[in-house]
Amino acid sequence: MAEKITPRETDFSQWYLDVVLNARLADYSPVKGCMVIRPNGYSIWEKIRDSLDRRIRATGTRNAYFPLFIPESFLSREAEHVEGFAPELAVVTQAGGKELEERLVVRPTSETIINSMFSKWIQSYRDLPLKLNQWANVVRWEMRTRLFLRTTEFLWQEGHTCHATPEEAEQMSREILDVYRNFCEETLAMPVYWGLKTDSERFAGAVRTYCIEGMMQDRKALQAGTTHFLGDNFAKAFETKFLDSDGKEKLVHQSSWGVSTRLIGGLVMTHSDDKGLVLPPSVAETHVVIIPIGKKGSPELESVLIASEKLAEAIRSSNASVCVQVDADMTKQAGWKFHEVELIGIPLRIEVGPRDLDKNQAVVARRDTGKKEFLPLEKIPAFVTEALGLMQKNLLDKAKKFRDENTHRAGSYEEFKKLMADNAGFVEGAWCQGKECEEKAKTENKSTIRCLPLDSAWNKIAEKDPCILCGAQKENVRAIMAKSY
Amino acid sequence: MAEKITPRETDFSQWYLDVVLNARLADYSPVKGCMVIRPNGYSIWEKIRDSLDRRIRATGTRNAYFPLFIPESFLSREAEHVEGFAPELAVVTQAGGKELEERLVVRPTSETIINSMFSKWIQSYRDLPLKLNQWANVVRWEMRTRLFLRTTEFLWQEGHTCHATPEEAEQMSREILDVYRNFCEETLAMPVYWGLKTDSERFAGAVRTYCIEGMMQDRKALQAGTTHFLGDNFAKAFETKFLDSDGKEKLVHQSSWGVSTRLIGGLVMTHSDDKGLVLPPSVAETHVVIIPIGKKGSPELESVLIASEKLAEAIRSSNASVCVQVDADMTKQAGWKFHEVELIGIPLRIEVGPRDLDKNQAVVARRDTGKKEFLPLEKIPAFVTEALGLMQKNLLDKAKKFRDENTHRAGSYEEFKKLMADNAGFVEGAWCQGKECEEKAKTENKSTIRCLPLDSAWNKIAEKDPCILCGAQKENVRAIMAKSY
Repeated sequence: MAEKITPRETDFSQWYLDVVLNARLADYSPVKGCMVIRPNGYSIWEKIRDSLDRRIRATGTRNAYFPLFIPESFLSREAEHVEGFAPELAVVTQAGGKELEERLVVRPTSETIINSMFSKWIQSYRDLPLKLNQWANVVRWEMRTRLFLRTTEFLWQEGHTCHATPEEAEQMSREILDVYRNFCEETLAMPVYWGLKTDSERFAGAVRTYCIEGMMQDRKALQAGTTHFLGDNFAKAFETKFLDSDGKEKLVHQSSWGVSTRLIGGLVMTHSDDKGLVLPPSVAETHVVIIPIGKKGSPELESVLIASEKLAEAIRSSNASVCVQVDADMTKQAGWKFHEVELIGIPLRIEVGPRDLDKNQAVVARRDTGKKEFLPLEKIPAFVTEALGLMQKNLLDKAKKFRDENTHRAGSYEEFKKLMADNAGFVEGAWCQGKECEEKAKTENKSTIRCLPLDSAWNKIAEKDPCILCGAQKENVRAIMAKSY
Repeated sequence: MAEKITPRETDFSQWYLDVVLNARLADYSPVKGCMVIRPNGYSIWEKIRDSLDRRIRATGTRNAYFPLFIPESFLSREAEHVEGFAPELAVVTQAGGKELEERLVVRPTSETIINSMFSKWIQSYRDLPLKLNQWANVVRWEMRTRLFLRTTEFLWQEGHTCHATPEEAEQMSREILDVYRNFCEETLAMPVYWGLKTDSERFAGAVRTYCIEGMMQDRKALQAGTTHFLGDNFAKAFETKFLDSDGKEKLVHQSSWGVSTRLIGGLVMTHSDDKGLVLPPSVAETHVVIIPIGKKGSPELESVLIASEKLAEAIRSSNASVCVQVDADMTKQAGWKFHEVELIGIPLRIEVGPRDLDKNQAVVARRDTGKKEFLPLEKIPAFVTEALGLMQKNLLDKAKKFRDENTHRAGSYEEFKKLMADNAGFVEGAWCQGKECEEKAKTENKSTIRCLPLDSAWNKIAEKDPCILCGAQKENVRAIMAKSY
C-alpha cells in the first residue's frame, strides 16, 4: 500500500526500492545480486521487447540464439575485451559430474561466441551485411547491485552486425542509436540525450561507443542503452573475413548494441510518484480498471456490477488494444482498491457507484494527473482512448520539461563545481578532451562525462569556449556531465 | 541445396541433420552439446512461443522470470529431485575472480528456486491459486546430443502453480496437458497421444507425470511435452504453506509443466521431406515467395517485376497475416530459387513469367503437395488464404493418417516382439504394471512404455486382456509402447 512508500524528498533511493517492491515489479532472490522479475514487472519487459523488436526488425535485423556458455579462451582473443570483463565473470568449472577440460564462462556479452559463428558463415561479400539480434540473459558479477538498475543476471537484447566497410558498420551503430532514442521517447515517454562516450567509458573492445542518457527525478543520469562501432577488432581476433567483389580477402567491420531490463528501473525513476508506479500506457499491461462500488448483497450492487461489465465491453469493442479489467472482488474495500491501482500504475481508474449510475455516469481518474471527471457512460469509451493518448504525451512532455529545466550551461569550473555540489542536474560545457579533466570531474565533483552530444554540430560548437575543468581552449568539444547511476 | 539432403529411406537420422543444417535452422557451436539457433529456426520458436503463450495466459497464468543460478543446497532439499538431476548439472564454482562460498547450479529446471519465492509470497488461501510461467534457457549436461532434440542448453517454457488442494493441482496439470495437445494439433499440425508416464519415467520429484507423444516419420516416438502433478513434495522441502479459510496452516499442492525447442525437431521429423523443410503455415515466418522470371535487363523483366510487387501488395491487403516476399535478386537463377524456397519450407511459391503475364496469370505451387496451378492474377490473393488453410489441415490429416496406420494393437508377446523388430511403429496393448515387464520391453525390444493413454476409460479397457509382456491378467492397463528419441 501507498503508506509503505518513502516520499522521494525524504530518500529517493529508498523510494525507488519501495515502488519496485510494493508494485511487485521485482523481488530479491536467494542468489546474491540476482533478482526475480514478478509478473507486474515482466509484463513491462514484454511490452518493451515487442515494441523494440519491431523497430529492430525494421532495420533488416533478424533474431537468433547463441549459447549461454563461452569457452574461456575465446574471451582472451580480444585483449581489451578480456581485460574489461575478466573481473565480472561467472565460471562453470564442473559439469556432468566432472571437472571441465576448458572452463566455460557464462556470457557477459556475446561478441566472441557470435564471431566464432560469423567466421564460419561469412565467405563472400554476398553474405554481407549480416545483422543478428538475440534476446537473452547475461551475467556480470557485480559487487553492489540494485533491483533492475544493476543486477548480476539481467535480461537484454544484443545486436551484432557485420559489414563490408567501416563506414557501413559505424552507420549501423548510429542507426540503432536512433532506434533506441525514438523507442525511449515514443514508447517509454523517456527523453534522452544521445552522443558519444569518452574513451574511458568505451565498451571493452570497441572503437567508439554511443549511448543514450536519461535524467531521473533525482536529476542523476541513467545510461539507458549503448551501441558500439567495433571496427575490425573482433574480426581480427576471430578471422571473420570475406572475399570482396574485387577478389580480395578482407576483414568484416562490425557493430554491436544492447538495452536491458535496466530500462524498467529508468521508467520507474522517470515517471513514478509518491503514490507508486506511473506507467506510460504503451507499456501498461492493463490500461483501465473499473471498480464497482456498492454494499455487498444489495440489489444496487447487482446493477452496478452489470453496468461495469457492460462498460468494460463497450471500451473493448471501441478499441481492441485497450486492456480493461473489472475488479469485482467484493471482499476488498473500494478505498483499498483505489490505492492498489495507483500503486501498481494502472493508467485509468473508473468508479461505478449506484448514485452515479442513476445519473448514467461514472468517475474516470487519470493516474498521471490525478484528475477525476464525471462522464456520461456512453462517452467513456472514446474518452478512454483519448485520455490514454494524452497521458502518453503528457508523461513525455513532463519528463522533457524536467530534464530541460535541470540541464545547465556552465562556462567555468566554479559554475560547474557549484552545480554539481547542488545536485542541480546535467551540466553542459566545453571539455578539452584531456583525461586529467575527466578525472577531475570524477574525483572532485563525483560526476562523469555522460556523452559528447550528437544533436547538432557536436565537435564544433564548444571550440571557442574554454574547458570548464581546466580553462584550456584547444580542440574543445561539447560534453554533458552529471552524477549518475 | 536439395542435393545435399540424404533421402529419408537411406538414413533417417542423417536426413534429419541435413534438413536442419541446410534449411539453416541451427548449427553446431564451439561449446560441446550447445547449438546455435539461426534466424530460420528462431522464427519458428517465436511463432511457437506466441501461440503457446496466448493459450497459457488463457488459463490464468502470468509470466515472470527467476534466476539462472540455483544454490546447490536447494536441489538437495527434495531427495528424488536431486538424485534425478545431479548427473546433469553444470556448476559455477568461481565468480568475480573468487571461489564461491556456495556453488551455484545452472538451472536444469526451476522448481526449487521458484519454491523459495513461493514460500515468501504465499501466506493465505487468498493468495491461491498462484500460476506462473517463464520462458527461459536451461542446462542439462548430456552425453549424446542432437540438434533441437537433445542439447545441453535449450530454450523452454516452464509453468509452476500452487493450489489449495491436491485435486486442483492435478486438475491444472491435466488442463495444461490439453493446452499442449491442442497446441500441437492446431498450431504444429502434429497429432499426439496423451497420457500418464509410468513410475520409472516420472519427473524427479513428481507424484505423477503426464505427457504428449508424437510419431515421427521413422515411426519412433518423440516426447513433445510433459506436465507434472507435484503433490506437496516441493512444498514440504521449502515450507510453502498457507493459512486456509478454516484457520489451519497447510502445505500448497503444485503442478509444473514444460515444452522446449525440442518441438522444432519434432516439427521437422513430422512434416519434412527429401526436398527439405515443410512447415505448417501457422509457424512459417514467410508464407509466400514470389519469384519473378525473365532475362536480366529485358523490358519483359521490368513488367514482371512490377507485376510481382503489385501481386505481393494485393495479397497483403487481402490478408494482413500473410507474409509475402518478392525475390527480386536477379543474380540468382530461378531454378536455384525454386530449390531454395523448397529447402527452407516456404508454404507457397508463386512464379511470375512474361508469357504467363501476357495471359494475366501466374503459377502457384504448394510446398506440401508439390501441386502447381495456373491462376488468374486477380484470383491469387483469395487462393493464397485458402491454400494456407488447406495446407495447415492437410499436414495434420497426413500426419494423423501416418500415425494411425503405424499404431498397432498387440495381444501377445510374439506379436509385440515382431512389431518392434519390424520397426512397425507404436504398439498398443495391455500391461500388468510390473516393472519387470517394462524392463523386458526395454532390454529385449529396445522400446519403452510411452504413456498410459487418457483418451477414454484408460485404466479399464485393458483389464480383461493379458499383459502383452508376461501374459498376466491382473490390474492391467492400456499402454502405448514404442522405440523413441
